[in-house]
Amino acid sequence: MRIQPAMAGTEAPPVMEARRWIAGVEFPVDRPLLNVSQAAPVDVPPLAMREAIARFAIEVPQAHLYGPVLGIPELRATVASEWSEAYGGAVDAGDVAITSGCNQAFAAAVATLAGPEDEVLLPTPWYFNHKMWLDMSGIRAVPTPCGAGMLPDLEAATALITDRTRAIVLVTPNNPTGAEYPVGLVRAFFEVCRARGIALILDETYRDFHSVEGAPHDLFTDPDWRETLIQLYSFSKAYRLTGHRVGALVATPARLAEVEKFLDTVSICANQLGQMAALWGMRNLRQWLGGERAEILARRAAVETHIAPLPGWEILGVGAYFAYMRHPYNMASDVLTKRLVSEASVLALPGTMFTPAGDTLGQQSLRIAFANIDASGIHELARRLGSLTL
Amino acid sequence: MRIQPAMAGTEAPPVMEARRWIAGVEFPVDRPLLNVSQAAPVDVPPLAMREAIARFAIEVPQAHLYGPVLGIPELRATVASEWSEAYGGAVDAGDVAITSGCNQAFAAAVATLAGPEDEVLLPTPWYFNHKMWLDMSGIRAVPTPCGAGMLPDLEAATALITDRTRAIVLVTPNNPTGAEYPVGLVRAFFEVCRARGIALILDETYRDFHSVEGAPHDLFTDPDWRETLIQLYSFSKAYRLTGHRVGALVATPARLAEVEKFLDTVSICANQLGQMAALWGMRNLRQWLGGERAEILARRAAVETHIAPLPGWEILGVGAYFAYMRHPYNMASDVLTKRLVSEASVLALPGTMFTPAGDTLGQQSLRIAFANIDASGIHELARRLGSLTL
Repeated sequence: MRIQPAMAGTEAPPVMEARRWIAGVEFPVDRPLLNVSQAAPVDVPPLAMREAIARFAIEVPQAHLYGPVLGIPELRATVASEWSEAYGGAVDAGDVAITSGCNQAFAAAVATLAGPEDEVLLPTPWYFNHKMWLDMSGIRAVPTPCGAGMLPDLEAATALITDRTRAIVLVTPNNPTGAEYPVGLVRAFFEVCRARGIALILDETYRDFHSVEGAPHDLFTDPDWRETLIQLYSFSKAYRLTGHRVGALVATPARLAEVEKFLDTVSICANQLGQMAALWGMRNLRQWLGGERAEILARRAAVETHIAPLPGWEILGVGAYFAYMRHPYNMASDVLTKRLVSEASVLALPGTMFTPAGDTLGQQSLRIAFANIDASGIHELARRLGSLTL
Repeated sequence: MRIQPAMAGTEAPPVMEARRWIAGVEFPVDRPLLNVSQAAPVDVPPLAMREAIARFAIEVPQAHLYGPVLGIPELRATVASEWSEAYGGAVDAGDVAITSGCNQAFAAAVATLAGPEDEVLLPTPWYFNHKMWLDMSGIRAVPTPCGAGMLPDLEAATALITDRTRAIVLVTPNNPTGAEYPVGLVRAFFEVCRARGIALILDETYRDFHSVEGAPHDLFTDPDWRETLIQLYSFSKAYRLTGHRVGALVATPARLAEVEKFLDTVSICANQLGQMAALWGMRNLRQWLGGERAEILARRAAVETHIAPLPGWEILGVGAYFAYMRHPYNMASDVLTKRLVSEASVLALPGTMFTPAGDTLGQQSLRIAFANIDASGIHELARRLGSLTL
């Protein structure tokens, strides 16, 4: 049975692989599983939102029918106005597409930009689904180094641009490292992309949990942002809607006309109930979301209090949902994370899932999605990591 | 602003184009719009299903969380057991993937089979989203002629197979022609694909509305079906769930491991509420679905009673949701369909949307999604077409 070579050469989904590590495992009663693998709010949305979804299902016919490919107009307009306010720039409803989650936004953006033999720069460690989409599309993912604080190296990136380069991808706050990129660094990458005539794909899935108040970058204040910038967003984390699959892509309408072809062909439209839930959340949960952010920042503080001091461990990056840790053991991270399951009831993802094959940093590091567990869980995680004897 | 050439060369979404034809149009009060363009049930799901969705939203935490990439296990198992019964063959839960609609199932299937420079045979007229996916993927869509009854020509198709051919796509009941392919014809295509070592992609989105009782083909009774067959299905039409985006792909588990890469990267999983609704539908609406089928068959009969006799018009194919008509006018179908909007308040899709550029049949034909309107609407449609003076 023939498999398309680019697909055959694409890695299997890391999260499903990690799920298999714990399938059928019985964890000790006094040491239950701490799952810090997939980045996902563990709790359900607030009751008022669940009741709103229930009302839409019963009362709103459109909840069950096809909608416009680029999304429900009110949701597009609401994203545009909130963005204009938050970033101090001008974003119109016509600049916004609603997607079936942020992974689809990335896939759509790249599909409009690059094809086989083209190149896209991905800072390492990268988000594995970005790498997978490039691989299965036959596009070369060019590993781009990060320096201190897990910040992408501007000079190194610039030197990697060729006449086949179509885009640079930045994720801030970063997945997997948690690093928050400074305003000036994001702007500098934007200017390089503009000067070279390539796109800057800026994935801000975790923007709602940024530790700094105010706009995390100033790109939307640039009157010509549409020539260079493609911004991605997810409603999954802010509103605990991971199961609903709703994201957004912000770009110039001319590019959205191409994105529309992709979305129509791949899924026709994002599901309507999820879009309605996202819209309801934006309209009704702003204050609640502020509390969510405070809670996530408290968990980050707990990581810095309890996990940072562990002998031999080093926090390479921390922010939003993630801590990216260097481990003290003389073994590859994918071996270590499997042993963490059996010896500490901890499921984390190894750095090898976020880096090119054989990468030294990848073997020495792992990602902890600390946002999945509360402060006492983080304390317990620190206790288990600290008492490991491998 | 650079656009990837294969994407730039892909046609814009026809349904969105047709929606623009009626945007802002005020239809006469005594001649309201008859929309027979997009194939979509106009009514919402039964109240019991909407109430079930509402309950899931409030009471079931998993409704809001990420699920397995290949779908909710109970839904996969239920599809497998219903298929095993309906087709008299052996389909296991591990052969079933749940997708974000049937378009995504097609995209995923093709992505595992073919890449740039490869070829896929599409009988014409084709379903436009199939053509669009091949185009944007850089895969050559090879137009394959249909003969009498709009049935694909086996000999012609066989002659078009080259060493770059990866699959033949059949849609039955067909979109856009409505044609129901005989059991023997489907089997003959399967045998050709098997002999040539290529895949048969069989899209059965409209299977629930087939006019013949019993299995529409015998492929699942073949113990080696997994070597050749990839079957696609949609929950949208049967359960009026178009807005929920849930489909299925049935294939060998080895191919599903590749499909899993695609789905994970493009959308992580199909939304959970939609999957739960589909499962609830399969468990509770079988008898109701029988009534739906009877109603669609009655509408088809109304087409044959009222539209078939129209002077100059010819029904080239009819079945499930669609009638594919040859029109009597000396103008291209895309010109005609725009005039139908202004002069008859009818929105139908022109044959040019389903055929290669310049295709004679495409210019002479149009698709009527008669399932969208009831018998009195079909009568009215016939009256308006019959009284046209162009």
